[in-house]
Amino acid sequence: MQRPLLIQIHAQDNVAIVVNDGGLPKGTYIEEHQITLVDDIPQGHKVTLSHLKLDDPIIRYGEIIGYANEDLPQGRWVNEAVTRMPTPPNLNELEMATRPAPKLESLTGYTFQGYKNADGSVGTKNLLAITTSVNCVEGIVDYVVKIIEREVLPKYPNVDGVVGLNHLYGCGVAIDAPAAVVPIRTIHNLALNPNFGGEVMVVSLGCEKLQPERLLNEVDANSKRIPVADADIVRLQDERHLGFQDMIDHILAVAEIHLQKLNQRQRETVSAEHLVVGMQCGGSDAFSGVTSNPAVGFAADLIVRCGGTVMFSEVTEVRDGIHLLTPRAADEQVAKDLIREMQWYDDYLAAGRVDRSANTTPGNKKGGLNNIVEKAMGSIAKSGTSAIVEVLSPGQKPSKKGLIFAATPSSDFICGTQQMASGITVQVFTTGRGTPYGLAAVPVIKMASRNNIANRWSDLIDISAGDIAIGKKSIEQVGWELFELILAVASGEKQTWSDKWGIHNSLAVFNPAPVT
Amino acid sequence: MQRPLLIQIHAQDNVAIVVNDGGLPKGTYIEEHQITLVDDIPQGHKVTLSHLKLDDPIIRYGEIIGYANEDLPQGRWVNEAVTRMPTPPNLNELEMATRPAPKLESLTGYTFQGYKNADGSVGTKNLLAITTSVNCVEGIVDYVVKIIEREVLPKYPNVDGVVGLNHLYGCGVAIDAPAAVVPIRTIHNLALNPNFGGEVMVVSLGCEKLQPERLLNEVDANSKRIPVADADIVRLQDERHLGFQDMIDHILAVAEIHLQKLNQRQRETVSAEHLVVGMQCGGSDAFSGVTSNPAVGFAADLIVRCGGTVMFSEVTEVRDGIHLLTPRAADEQVAKDLIREMQWYDDYLAAGRVDRSANTTPGNKKGGLNNIVEKAMGSIAKSGTSAIVEVLSPGQKPSKKGLIFAATPSSDFICGTQQMASGITVQVFTTGRGTPYGLAAVPVIKMASRNNIANRWSDLIDISAGDIAIGKKSIEQVGWELFELILAVASGEKQTWSDKWGIHNSLAVFNPAPVT
Repeated sequence: MQRPLLIQIHAQDNVAIVVNDGGLPKGTYIEEHQITLVDDIPQGHKVTLSHLKLDDPIIRYGEIIGYANEDLPQGRWVNEAVTRMPTPPNLNELEMATRPAPKLESLTGYTFQGYKNADGSVGTKNLLAITTSVNCVEGIVDYVVKIIEREVLPKYPNVDGVVGLNHLYGCGVAIDAPAAVVPIRTIHNLALNPNFGGEVMVVSLGCEKLQPERLLNEVDANSKRIPVADADIVRLQDERHLGFQDMIDHILAVAEIHLQKLNQRQRETVSAEHLVVGMQCGGSDAFSGVTSNPAVGFAADLIVRCGGTVMFSEVTEVRDGIHLLTPRAADEQVAKDLIREMQWYDDYLAAGRVDRSANTTPGNKKGGLNNIVEKAMGSIAKSGTSAIVEVLSPGQKPSKKGLIFAATPSSDFICGTQQMASGITVQVFTTGRGTPYGLAAVPVIKMASRNNIANRWSDLIDISAGDIAIGKKSIEQVGWELFELILAVASGEKQTWSDKWGIHNSLAVFNPAPVT
Repeated sequence: MQRPLLIQIHAQDNVAIVVNDGGLPKGTYIEEHQITLVDDIPQGHKVTLSHLKLDDPIIRYGEIIGYANEDLPQGRWVNEAVTRMPTPPNLNELEMATRPAPKLESLTGYTFQGYKNADGSVGTKNLLAITTSVNCVEGIVDYVVKIIEREVLPKYPNVDGVVGLNHLYGCGVAIDAPAAVVPIRTIHNLALNPNFGGEVMVVSLGCEKLQPERLLNEVDANSKRIPVADADIVRLQDERHLGFQDMIDHILAVAEIHLQKLNQRQRETVSAEHLVVGMQCGGSDAFSGVTSNPAVGFAADLIVRCGGTVMFSEVTEVRDGIHLLTPRAADEQVAKDLIREMQWYDDYLAAGRVDRSANTTPGNKKGGLNNIVEKAMGSIAKSGTSAIVEVLSPGQKPSKKGLIFAATPSSDFICGTQQMASGITVQVFTTGRGTPYGLAAVPVIKMASRNNIANRWSDLIDISAGDIAIGKKSIEQVGWELFELILAVASGEKQTWSDKWGIHNSLAVFNPAPVT
């Protein structure tokens, strides 16, 4: 058996987590820390390194993640029952742009094989996307997609696939509600993801609320009107359509025009500055913040050093660490924008009579994460150390390169969709408990926080950060491995497991406004 | 050319709608009403039958659908610009159960060929449903469904198909928010739709918020705990799974056990009292309330007379006609329940800073429906004339037979999902503008309000009520035709167009609570 091992992250921490598979039994002596466990402690769960008195702060990552609900002798299991959650950082008392990282040392010479777009972006896949203005057309679009896959794509060997951008928005929604800007912007920007090569076609019903004109219209300074010819919009209700077969034929004809253009594209060597990588975590455990997320953060720094773009997200999972982020803002406006997004989400949750504590899951807790504060500390590690240069509201497109906070819900499938709208071309997804999550249009690299899950799910997990926990590899080593993997996946040289199996989640457009 | 034709619905109406395809030009004389049009009037749009002065009520269906915004001489086009919307009926001043219809004359001898279930319900299809607790498993479930369709179903000829009950709920949601009861109840009850034969299996991730135990647990008096053996729950994160292939094999093995049981079922002749038919409209126009919806109402009465169940829904489309419904409640409690659901939705919309006027679509307006009041008058015609015996909150199961108001959003795809959870086994969907909408698990009969769309979409629309507009058929005739078609579809003797093409919308579970 492996020797008893704890991980203490920060010198100030008064708790550490159990590394060993299967946990450690009561009575175990841990030499390194000179303590004896007085409880059975599951893997990933916390143990007190010293005696904590009632109301003493519980410190992990050098931050207060809770308060002791009772007297906790050394060696005790610190679970949810004995922990009280702190209040979240006050949004009116945050340091703003006080400690942005100095510009990190540039990294040059790193490249990938990507598809260049007219707007300067670079795709990692060459896909035909069929934008939809309303869910009503979903059955028709799915039908066409199957025909294209089976009968049409063989004619266009340079095209990697076809994706129907189906969603549950477009009608039966309060389209003039203040919050409707979010789903409309998201659907607009999804059509522009760099992996679709700038070839936009739309299938519309005709009577829906989200008329194609509205969907394509300018949203904001970063999302101008999409210049789509009327011939690229198929409205099923148009008089010209004599039934189902006619609709299918029409959509196929429009699709072929775009497939011909897409087929002329070829991968070219481009600088890594054209990477736009989304970072996400899901099914997290106590290792996520120790192994995978710090490795992701290191890779994020590498991408930023190459001049590329990294997006991190998940508002409820940064809310409790916001005091660590606003100082890292590149300037005061960025810090204010961070606060704006936190406030928006606070209000949104309050309207539904919940707060950020609604975030943690049974799996998080089983994995040792007692509450959202502890989860957030691990989550924000994905952002690395560079200055935050821009903040995006949900589904917005960036105007800058570098480290960007793209505000999204933490829901895996919604975050993925929103990051896609913001233009990611690769996603890195860290997981402690494991998930088969994938996106149809953007390759998702799944990184495990523990070797246990990486080994068991060897045909679903692309890379493991588990060796960090057992001291076999450093965060830097795994960060470099991940960076190299990102370049290989972006180049189409390496296929992710979810792409290999073709297992993908539906788009889940964030709609904070009412449905009607 | 067809002679100029207007339809005036009620003797008190001071507007009528233009029947003719292409509308009627200015100067047209309409003999029947002795008026000359002073505007070009599009098909389905309203014309003044007499001179209306500023602020005069505009009356259609014998109800005030708006007020004149300006002086309107006889023969004028009554469009949105010249109409002001009335305030909605005050929920505190409604008549309750003052005029419930006397029990309609019984109809006996009508039967269909259905699949009997142990709980007394009867299915119209014999499907294997794979319930999912969270969207994370979607890719895996889709993968398994394809294998079952291709390789497994041929062994089970009595099984009509397999349906993955994927949805966007289950994690990343505020599961303890007050409104979370709606999506949880919906997913619970979807698993029990009579078309799934009582064979429930669940695919879960493991760490999600909506744990299978919670999903299966008792929801309310009408939705007891679903007695599912642990062997019927596949948790992907379970230690037993060594990766992707292993998960697939496990799900397939569980599926086969249920397929074997389902394969033993055969259609049997059952009384029409076992019908549970959902009525819905979408892409409505001014004809919907004149032709298709009244015919649906007539068929609804026939089903109720057989002892069967009819559900009508779409809160924002009954809100402005609620004063016509509460008097029809079978007793005061039912009337109070109706008011409760209206109030809930008023509050829900207000929280998003909109009101019921958010409902109408560009297509509705093009089709002649100026506002939600006029739309509602046409929409509630689907309920026929019988007493309302029960009111269901979104996704609830009924405890009674007869005419039931199942509260749902009006969004086609959400309404369909919610009605499925409430147990419909056939849906009738009326449309003026046309939609390819369909459900994978419940046959959807699409009825056109106009012959124009029925003829153009002859391979998508199952039945037309258009002959009513031109006086070729009566509402009763088309109502009977629809009733007979419902029985044939319920029996599997007649296939709906959406089932023939296999075009189906995703499930869209109503989640009024925040996502996290």
